[in-house]
Amino acid sequence: MPSEFELITRYFSRPVPGDMLGAGDDCALFSVKPGMQLATSTDLLLEGRHFFAGTDPFRLGHKALAVNLSDLAAVGAKPLACLLGLGLPSVDEQWVSRFADGFYALADEFGCALIGGDTTRSMQGVTLSVTVFGEVAPELAMRRSAAVLGDDIWVSGDLGAADIACRMLAGELPRDEKLLAQTRLALEKPTPRVALGRRLASHVHAAIDLSDGLVQDLGHILKASGVAAELEEVAMPVHDALTGYDAAHVRRAILAGGDVYELCFTASPAQRDSLQRIAIETGVPLARVGRITSGSGVVVRDAGGHALSDLPNGFDHFRSSGDARL
Amino acid sequence: MPSEFELITRYFSRPVPGDMLGAGDDCALFSVKPGMQLATSTDLLLEGRHFFAGTDPFRLGHKALAVNLSDLAAVGAKPLACLLGLGLPSVDEQWVSRFADGFYALADEFGCALIGGDTTRSMQGVTLSVTVFGEVAPELAMRRSAAVLGDDIWVSGDLGAADIACRMLAGELPRDEKLLAQTRLALEKPTPRVALGRRLASHVHAAIDLSDGLVQDLGHILKASGVAAELEEVAMPVHDALTGYDAAHVRRAILAGGDVYELCFTASPAQRDSLQRIAIETGVPLARVGRITSGSGVVVRDAGGHALSDLPNGFDHFRSSGDARL
Repeated sequence: MPSEFELITRYFSRPVPGDMLGAGDDCALFSVKPGMQLATSTDLLLEGRHFFAGTDPFRLGHKALAVNLSDLAAVGAKPLACLLGLGLPSVDEQWVSRFADGFYALADEFGCALIGGDTTRSMQGVTLSVTVFGEVAPELAMRRSAAVLGDDIWVSGDLGAADIACRMLAGELPRDEKLLAQTRLALEKPTPRVALGRRLASHVHAAIDLSDGLVQDLGHILKASGVAAELEEVAMPVHDALTGYDAAHVRRAILAGGDVYELCFTASPAQRDSLQRIAIETGVPLARVGRITSGSGVVVRDAGGHALSDLPNGFDHFRSSGDARL
Repeated sequence: MPSEFELITRYFSRPVPGDMLGAGDDCALFSVKPGMQLATSTDLLLEGRHFFAGTDPFRLGHKALAVNLSDLAAVGAKPLACLLGLGLPSVDEQWVSRFADGFYALADEFGCALIGGDTTRSMQGVTLSVTVFGEVAPELAMRRSAAVLGDDIWVSGDLGAADIACRMLAGELPRDEKLLAQTRLALEKPTPRVALGRRLASHVHAAIDLSDGLVQDLGHILKASGVAAELEEVAMPVHDALTGYDAAHVRRAILAGGDVYELCFTASPAQRDSLQRIAIETGVPLARVGRITSGSGVVVRDAGGHALSDLPNGFDHFRSSGDARL
């Protein structure tokens, strides 16, 4: 007799493209185009740490895949396929169905076929593991180590909303229902910048996606590239809904708020026109927020040109003791 | 300041082959040989469900990778690389170091480079997610759906030890220290049959690795192939240490014990000589335990030729409510 866990696999058994061997065998099988490299990334997402218990399952399905697609975006890869590990304390078919709908909606949008994975009972809350696969021409893959002295530093989209929503939901900030409604989607349903990443690949040097906060994630580029950075606070693309909100909280959200999934990248000043054109063509605003300098570390200058003395560290509610990428 | 989780990533930062971009970037990058398909599989392993709290971390590192390499073995793929997601309730550097040693020892043995992953705090016990990548010629990949009427059914290695060890450790069977010493390695340090799988690929029809028990896993082949099976109990390769042990427990361990990671496969009777030669060359015994018949389901015949009426279901201590593969 099939177990309840075997029964729920039917929610994840939608057809896969004909050249892929999908769900149900010991391995999934697929091909990478000749001359292309496989790009892959995996993330663990744990209830209570990476998302709140009770998060809408449709949005959770979306987000579990989105944060991984964002890694493909950061190297400029085209999504191909993904695997899902799903640990559940119990089987709630309605929950599973909604989760699958959210996951597949994003997977379909980005042509990222779910080709395998497993389900298990988790004694501990919802446990998610997603692995994505993409392909990228080796010479185009954007790397953290490629920033060059004199590069501009750019950020896609806008910043701050996810952090404010997260801190309201966690009770760290007073709950303002209107503001929460305006910022919550940024936290729970981020848009991976896949098309943008692929367009950027031939124009920029280093890139990273913003999962742990601008200062911390930019720091990974700086360390890998052996350079430093100066950021201009007034150039930051602050989310519209935060206009007029407490300035200290906004500053912290912009510089250190995690879970953003925008791209931060560095490019030669000669690329400014090209990048503005890409912004228009992809419909994703790009803001030039600073420059690569010599030395190490990040300096942030306020509107008056003074360096902030007390830079908030990369931090968010869930990651307060620091996830780390292998 | 780097967090304790960032610090432990140094245990997983050993060099990777020059043509792979490894740990530390948004994605790992690698190439698959022209004409080969990528084979991939992922497993979640949760403390208390897939392994006991307090398991020796060296063996746990070994096993987390071994169960995934076993999936590559089951399709006949050559291992290339892997990703690791590691959730820990707290950071015990000695534990992490031993875990990494066990993981790398097996990874090195099979040429399976650790090229990325992430670490996070788990509120709930050790949470592991491993994804493996291998390559296989599309025409050679062994699939569950390829069994043919009249095929022999074969099993590699021996059966029963992991289940008896697991049930003693779980307190379901009286603890016999000598027997536990003889069987425990089968549970905690299984050998993935990678070289065997690659040799079998051009000689056999369907294959699967035994993670959930012979009857249940063979059942996946039967269902995917639209056939039935008859197994001979006397032909089963019972682990030496179980000679003289309670017959009912041995039967259950052989037919339904999980966590075995031997291969079960079907092949034409014309392949018997070739398979015996492969057994000698790889040093892995192969036992012919039954045949593929028409219909559906599994019949097991005892020494007198009588069909067992009460077939134990695929079951082990950890998987009692049934993990399922997507």
